[in-house]
Amino acid sequence: MNTAALYHRPESEFAYLYTQNEVHVRVRAAKEDIKKVTLIYGDPYSWSTSGVGNADNQDTQNVWLSHKKVMQKLATTETSDYFEAKVSVPTKRLDYVFVVEGADGEKIILTDKGVMPYKRALLISKYGAFRLPYFHEVDRFQAPEWAHDRVWYQIFPERFANGDTSNDPENVKAWTDTAPDRQDFYGGDLQGVLDHLDHLSTLGVNGIYFCPVFKASTNHKYDTEDYLAIDPHFGDKKLFKKVIDAAHARGIKVMLDAVFNHIGDTSPQWQDVLENQERSRYKDWFHINSFPVVGDEAVDNAEVSENLSYDTFAFTPHMPKLNTANAEVQAYLLEIAAYWIREFDIDAWRLDVADEVDHAFWKKFRAVCDAAKDDFYILGEVWHSAQPWLVGDEFSAVMNYTYTGAIEDYFLTHKLTLSQMIATLNEQLMLYRKQTSQVMFNVLDSHDTPRVLTVAKGDKDLMRQVEAFTYLQPGVPCIYYGDEFAMTGGMDPDCRKPMVWAAEKQDHAMFAFFKELVAFRKMWARELAESELDWLRADEKSGLIELRRGALSGVFNTGKKAVSYDKRGKVQLSQLTADGKIAPKGFVIFR
Amino acid sequence: MNTAALYHRPESEFAYLYTQNEVHVRVRAAKEDIKKVTLIYGDPYSWSTSGVGNADNQDTQNVWLSHKKVMQKLATTETSDYFEAKVSVPTKRLDYVFVVEGADGEKIILTDKGVMPYKRALLISKYGAFRLPYFHEVDRFQAPEWAHDRVWYQIFPERFANGDTSNDPENVKAWTDTAPDRQDFYGGDLQGVLDHLDHLSTLGVNGIYFCPVFKASTNHKYDTEDYLAIDPHFGDKKLFKKVIDAAHARGIKVMLDAVFNHIGDTSPQWQDVLENQERSRYKDWFHINSFPVVGDEAVDNAEVSENLSYDTFAFTPHMPKLNTANAEVQAYLLEIAAYWIREFDIDAWRLDVADEVDHAFWKKFRAVCDAAKDDFYILGEVWHSAQPWLVGDEFSAVMNYTYTGAIEDYFLTHKLTLSQMIATLNEQLMLYRKQTSQVMFNVLDSHDTPRVLTVAKGDKDLMRQVEAFTYLQPGVPCIYYGDEFAMTGGMDPDCRKPMVWAAEKQDHAMFAFFKELVAFRKMWARELAESELDWLRADEKSGLIELRRGALSGVFNTGKKAVSYDKRGKVQLSQLTADGKIAPKGFVIFR
Repeated sequence: MNTAALYHRPESEFAYLYTQNEVHVRVRAAKEDIKKVTLIYGDPYSWSTSGVGNADNQDTQNVWLSHKKVMQKLATTETSDYFEAKVSVPTKRLDYVFVVEGADGEKIILTDKGVMPYKRALLISKYGAFRLPYFHEVDRFQAPEWAHDRVWYQIFPERFANGDTSNDPENVKAWTDTAPDRQDFYGGDLQGVLDHLDHLSTLGVNGIYFCPVFKASTNHKYDTEDYLAIDPHFGDKKLFKKVIDAAHARGIKVMLDAVFNHIGDTSPQWQDVLENQERSRYKDWFHINSFPVVGDEAVDNAEVSENLSYDTFAFTPHMPKLNTANAEVQAYLLEIAAYWIREFDIDAWRLDVADEVDHAFWKKFRAVCDAAKDDFYILGEVWHSAQPWLVGDEFSAVMNYTYTGAIEDYFLTHKLTLSQMIATLNEQLMLYRKQTSQVMFNVLDSHDTPRVLTVAKGDKDLMRQVEAFTYLQPGVPCIYYGDEFAMTGGMDPDCRKPMVWAAEKQDHAMFAFFKELVAFRKMWARELAESELDWLRADEKSGLIELRRGALSGVFNTGKKAVSYDKRGKVQLSQLTADGKIAPKGFVIFR
Repeated sequence: MNTAALYHRPESEFAYLYTQNEVHVRVRAAKEDIKKVTLIYGDPYSWSTSGVGNADNQDTQNVWLSHKKVMQKLATTETSDYFEAKVSVPTKRLDYVFVVEGADGEKIILTDKGVMPYKRALLISKYGAFRLPYFHEVDRFQAPEWAHDRVWYQIFPERFANGDTSNDPENVKAWTDTAPDRQDFYGGDLQGVLDHLDHLSTLGVNGIYFCPVFKASTNHKYDTEDYLAIDPHFGDKKLFKKVIDAAHARGIKVMLDAVFNHIGDTSPQWQDVLENQERSRYKDWFHINSFPVVGDEAVDNAEVSENLSYDTFAFTPHMPKLNTANAEVQAYLLEIAAYWIREFDIDAWRLDVADEVDHAFWKKFRAVCDAAKDDFYILGEVWHSAQPWLVGDEFSAVMNYTYTGAIEDYFLTHKLTLSQMIATLNEQLMLYRKQTSQVMFNVLDSHDTPRVLTVAKGDKDLMRQVEAFTYLQPGVPCIYYGDEFAMTGGMDPDCRKPMVWAAEKQDHAMFAFFKELVAFRKMWARELAESELDWLRADEKSGLIELRRGALSGVFNTGKKAVSYDKRGKVQLSQLTADGKIAPKGFVIFR
């Protein structure tokens, strides 16, 4: 047996409370190396001969009162198999070890003290047991139930709709100009959002993720000037309240974008630093390495400069990094977090560059949000593996770029093989607790990526197929504004074109597809959250994928030839199927 | 190459800030499977062609400006080799991947997205890099500097010294009676401690860990009745203040035992529950599963009962578990934590049954202690692997039973082979950040275990050898009261005999040895904290162990025959050496 490959980590995604008294225990082993894994578990203090109540100094003459459960293979990656068992203990305490039997007949016990040759004496004395000491509801990772049945819609406000030309910036480009430059303005605003809520309701989405709406000088507003003001080109607080209330009336949740890693250089705080230097009362609000600090007009490139005397987002001079370990900065930002919940009843915060802000701050932020509103959802922008933020006291989820990226890398760009995609998806699922994966934010594109149709080289069948596949995954989907009309666009700024509102330029077939897809997703939200992801078939050669999500199953032809498929129930959604065959880019989802 | 065995976990003991700008990065691989591991690392946003500052959407035509560092083999366990590199990045951000070359010639890249075949294109595009997003001092695991050069001394107050017979409980046993029963009292008290501070100073210890001193009905006081009162049989607050001040005057730090997992059944809170049941204002202070709750007089066994309607420590009816998720309980316990720091200037808390209390509570506890006193030390009682509590915002260390247990299991009981012991020690070190291992609390015995001399079957040479070996380890040692006079004792209550104060019954040779050992440890505290642990030789057959700790090295003969050894410098401490040979149970420590 490949004992070097065995891995388990207590109190992590390898051992956690799923519900109040259901623990999920996982163990990693080398792929196809294991015949059977049995979890031996029980209360740490339960012995056949009652002894003094300290489990760790039990006389070994006593026998530990344990239970057995054969673990199920939960997922397979390129190198590993993951096994899982779901167990409960009425006394809310769990000790456990793994009895692992290799395909080669070797039998060992995996303990908290390492790998031991199998001996019954080790089990009955509970030698080196792993421990989940007590089932604390307060430490359990929890996300709001409502997050499960969302379909989000991402709005980049400057480009969604111009509902009020009176608040336009100077020199706005024509809405019909589909070649935005980095510094262009088009005049999109909150009145435009309000005017088009019917569009969202018709589409069926029930969550809006707003890119920043606070006062800032750029079109993207990620360089906040004032966190307590709506950008005047977007509208005002009264209008914003109207948008939120109208959204809520339609059952639509609202998520705002909090850019707390850095602030805009036009903010009064940074301006004060530029003016007063060491004497500025805000000098400790930032990470200043030496004085004097100079504004971006003094550097050669306003977007990238590597010779700054202060820390910034990336190397962007006009985005000085906030010192979130400073008590004043904390008080300032936490009040902002609470303010928009308290006064405007927002339902969620999306946190920009979330990984570069300290954990200590996010824990305080989480506490403030939880105190301000029940069932609040916190979404972090983290592009890499994100376990440290998803323990339960920071974020609810992260933007799941790694997950959806693997889907695109197979379906759209073929950078990955089918088996590599499945391995990556499984690997990603194994990084998180099940209740975390249920609420991950699955985006095929965003304001930071090329649009999905462009990645699909304009192939709409392919786009629909990859969307359908993504909607069947654990995690909740988000539509980037305009995808429903088949908008295209490469990397920023091209992905931020003005929304296409002219009916003759809209792709109504794509809209109809999304409408159906969104309705399907909402109807089956619970099933898609709670069920496992079972790969029934993944044929590298034909490109046929069959997967099961509880009562649902899906068949996807990612190959080059039509393939026969088995009818697995009542068709919920399909494309390019006929005569018992599924054409390339086709799919069927059955109930 | 055994790629299934590779493991890395960002923001854990596998990748952490050691100092403000020194990151330690580790990776696990199968034992003896790897030729070379190279860390490729750099700032996530540094590209040869300046682009827009979002690392994750860089055009792959750009080349990532990375650095290389060959990783060193840091430790070997039964199944694994661990490699480590120490790196810094001036911009305080780190992206990294591992290039791993197998002994079989295979070459791969270990990324955040899994194992990839080696391709330069992956490196220059920084594909799937692991990330430490920003070096936050506030998130760095830190323990007080003073913890490094401690030698602790554990006092079980009821058994250390009776300095005031006027406060004795009724029916105390004679101090000379060396057969304590579980319920016996002997009359030990704080005056006894005060009277014997000279003894501690002579011994050279500079920290006292007091088992509980708060009012409680048992001799061990782990069933607290009143956290704000000194037990009247021990003395009063005035006397306690005197003890602390006198200890501080001698440079001795003081650690108290906080029993916050449960309370005593004689506490007013629990008594109120027994009296008023559902109507008690304290009913939410506990984990009560159903009413009525009955006191321990109604159960068959006061120490173990499995049929209680409320949660307890283990199955001990007279120790009802506190609900530390309740805001009132939190306020109550946190004020107690602060009170003894504020009013009595204690330096550390030791937390009983720490693992069964929720993390959310311990984070608040840590914040309260840090606010009350700089450089406060928090020691958790955790017998199993303890990473979840040692992230940086809960404990400073845990009682290192697993580590010292492995030493005993080889040196004293031979349950482990030499290579198994070394593997376990290495494995334990790999569970924690280096700065954590430096302050772990290394006990060869305590009030919860048999005494070391008893485990050594009365062999004093062997005891001295295992003590010397333990004092050379990472982590700080603690002497259990009386070990310095070679006291014996089996499992509780036998390990809690009255301290031997009659000069003719004291082992003065053992005392002299400890005096020397403590002085040695304190003199070399910095070296023993900062240096690595290098196993120079571990000969299973002869039992000869040679290890290096920076400028120091040690040779231990754990075998049955005298062995020649190389003189490695100036002898600091030794036993049973002569004519260039080291006898069984002998050792030498060189500078």
